[in-house]
Amino acid sequence: MSEKSLAIQKHEQWRGKFEIKVRADILSPEDLAIAYTPGVAEPCLEIQRDVSRSFDLTRRWNTVAVVTDGTAVLGLGDIGPEAGMPVMEGKAALFKAFADVDAIPLCIRSKDAKEIAHTVALLAGSFGGINLEDIAAPRCFEVEAMLKEMCDIPIFHDDQHGTAVVTLAGLTNALKVVGKGKDARVLISGAGAAGCAIAELLFADGFANITLMNSRGVIRSDEEQTSERLNKLAKITNKQNISGGLDAAIMGMDVFIGVSAAGILKPEMVPKMAKNAIVFACANPIPEIMPDLAKAAGATVVATGRSDFANQINNVAAFPGIFRGALDARAKDITQEMNLAAAYAIASLVTPEELNAEYIIPSALDMRVPRAVAAAVRDAWENKK
Amino acid sequence: MSEKSLAIQKHEQWRGKFEIKVRADILSPEDLAIAYTPGVAEPCLEIQRDVSRSFDLTRRWNTVAVVTDGTAVLGLGDIGPEAGMPVMEGKAALFKAFADVDAIPLCIRSKDAKEIAHTVALLAGSFGGINLEDIAAPRCFEVEAMLKEMCDIPIFHDDQHGTAVVTLAGLTNALKVVGKGKDARVLISGAGAAGCAIAELLFADGFANITLMNSRGVIRSDEEQTSERLNKLAKITNKQNISGGLDAAIMGMDVFIGVSAAGILKPEMVPKMAKNAIVFACANPIPEIMPDLAKAAGATVVATGRSDFANQINNVAAFPGIFRGALDARAKDITQEMNLAAAYAIASLVTPEELNAEYIIPSALDMRVPRAVAAAVRDAWENKK
Repeated sequence: MSEKSLAIQKHEQWRGKFEIKVRADILSPEDLAIAYTPGVAEPCLEIQRDVSRSFDLTRRWNTVAVVTDGTAVLGLGDIGPEAGMPVMEGKAALFKAFADVDAIPLCIRSKDAKEIAHTVALLAGSFGGINLEDIAAPRCFEVEAMLKEMCDIPIFHDDQHGTAVVTLAGLTNALKVVGKGKDARVLISGAGAAGCAIAELLFADGFANITLMNSRGVIRSDEEQTSERLNKLAKITNKQNISGGLDAAIMGMDVFIGVSAAGILKPEMVPKMAKNAIVFACANPIPEIMPDLAKAAGATVVATGRSDFANQINNVAAFPGIFRGALDARAKDITQEMNLAAAYAIASLVTPEELNAEYIIPSALDMRVPRAVAAAVRDAWENKK
Repeated sequence: MSEKSLAIQKHEQWRGKFEIKVRADILSPEDLAIAYTPGVAEPCLEIQRDVSRSFDLTRRWNTVAVVTDGTAVLGLGDIGPEAGMPVMEGKAALFKAFADVDAIPLCIRSKDAKEIAHTVALLAGSFGGINLEDIAAPRCFEVEAMLKEMCDIPIFHDDQHGTAVVTLAGLTNALKVVGKGKDARVLISGAGAAGCAIAELLFADGFANITLMNSRGVIRSDEEQTSERLNKLAKITNKQNISGGLDAAIMGMDVFIGVSAAGILKPEMVPKMAKNAIVFACANPIPEIMPDLAKAAGATVVATGRSDFANQINNVAAFPGIFRGALDARAKDITQEMNLAAAYAIASLVTPEELNAEYIIPSALDMRVPRAVAAAVRDAWENKK
């Protein structure tokens, strides 16, 4: 038997990365008569009269379900619902540690979008929000869209919108470093869940010159795409009418954002980009190009998804604070305005004095981040009303 | 506005009777790299190879879903899933406090047995067991039966089996007090979830002379019943071939077990029972007869569901320990043998020296109870194999 890795050892030792903690006193008969029978009948009847009271009298106000079908877990693909649980538990631990959100991981044994959405919708009365996670595209889009229709609590697919928020936060500051604006030419490599959401959030922020590509080449409006969403994006992207693969698409780009595959951005491609190029190589664990290679090839600002290099683009900066803010506002949705507010809040934590090519985004472990994000997201919902 | 009751005040103050507690260290980059990406990929892959490893590497080994549709909450009836949550949260708090079981309350927005069972079955990979709660009969029987077929983790409907276990525990000791045995004539008033389960567990324990009745009278084999389960019970109960209501049925009974309605056992009925009568008046919050009236009318042993009288028949004595034992044994089911073992374990905590008409069952808050029940239930599963 091979030696156990530290990660396995630690997981065996924890036997679960979260547990239940009791908040009510229930060890005396008097306590029990209030927290349980017969006293508990009163909050029950009060919620029956007014369902919104479930946000005061139960944990619903602070509770989020973290839902997966286990089909796109990390970069591991379809490993099954039970095998997705260590990630979901990790997420639950992060929710609590960074934003005091109580998250309940639920792994669903189904790969049918309608069935997944229906299952979650039937449970929505137990939660204040739903975080979808590691569900393969395009099913994840369908599940999210259906749930947004079916539920009046916030639905958030972190792989899409969390990634987009943190990417935009980093990009906002990277552009300041190189003195460019929203007219920058942006190439997004990867047209799955993350790539589409990044493109949409960048458009919402006023970026106008975006090109989207996947492993088959640039997404073009004269070709039928695999989803309605991509068809829509095809119409508003690729203003330069580029055809072909990365070799062609990279020419003259100010920004490369990779949410695609290890090593696809070759060092010889970087000099073909515009001057003061920005490279976000976010494939995990192996980026599209290693930071030292990108730098040596001429990129001015480089970011990755990894904690062992400068400028980590990490969803942990986004989802805990976004849900904290949405729950605090008792928001019924998480809108692009809220996502934009979250991105700006993250970016603003790097002061002009601190800002440089090696420091465009605060550490994901910086506790100011979830607080700033939560406040901005709450305000964005409340100002909307 | 009327003054708020203490129960409402306390529930508003708690804002949830449980919360999430983080078990893993995740506040340094090194910690995060083990509990979350990239380290978490290893336990994920290990579970993909062998799903049973989900019981070592995640919280599944210790986690139970507490599931309701909100249709039979306490004695309040169909108050809706959100309004059932205060009870489910109370249950979760009791699971943790008494047996260190992590319980997740899930309130389902459906009244369709098939849909409820299907929803729970899709989530079964996230849990080590399922506790069904406060689902109206006969739907609760259908949901339980379907889930037992669909899942390989323990399914337990507490309103049935928890109630039956604690009732049998009390009855075992009550019979010792009056010097009677399993040939005692037992009348069960209430033929819903609890009444049926009590009858079945008593049969499993060797009681042979049981009569079952509901508000329409004694359950008879020559009448078509409302469920297959009642048809089965009709064939083996009512050996005396009694017809009619409580007035007729109570004649000569050694034991009255009420899981029915407030005040239906009139003081003038008690003297019609056999000598040294046992009265379990478990309707909540108002029993079938008040203990002082039952005693004055001649009953020797009286029990209720209430904590403010002697001999409380309270499910809290059963469900935490039963699930602790089932989880510890990694049992795939909770069998009648396990229920019987739980009942004997509870009864055995009252020593022959302590046993008397006012003390037939240990306090539900006695921490020896869940430990003894857990050990007995685990042994019962393991000896079965």
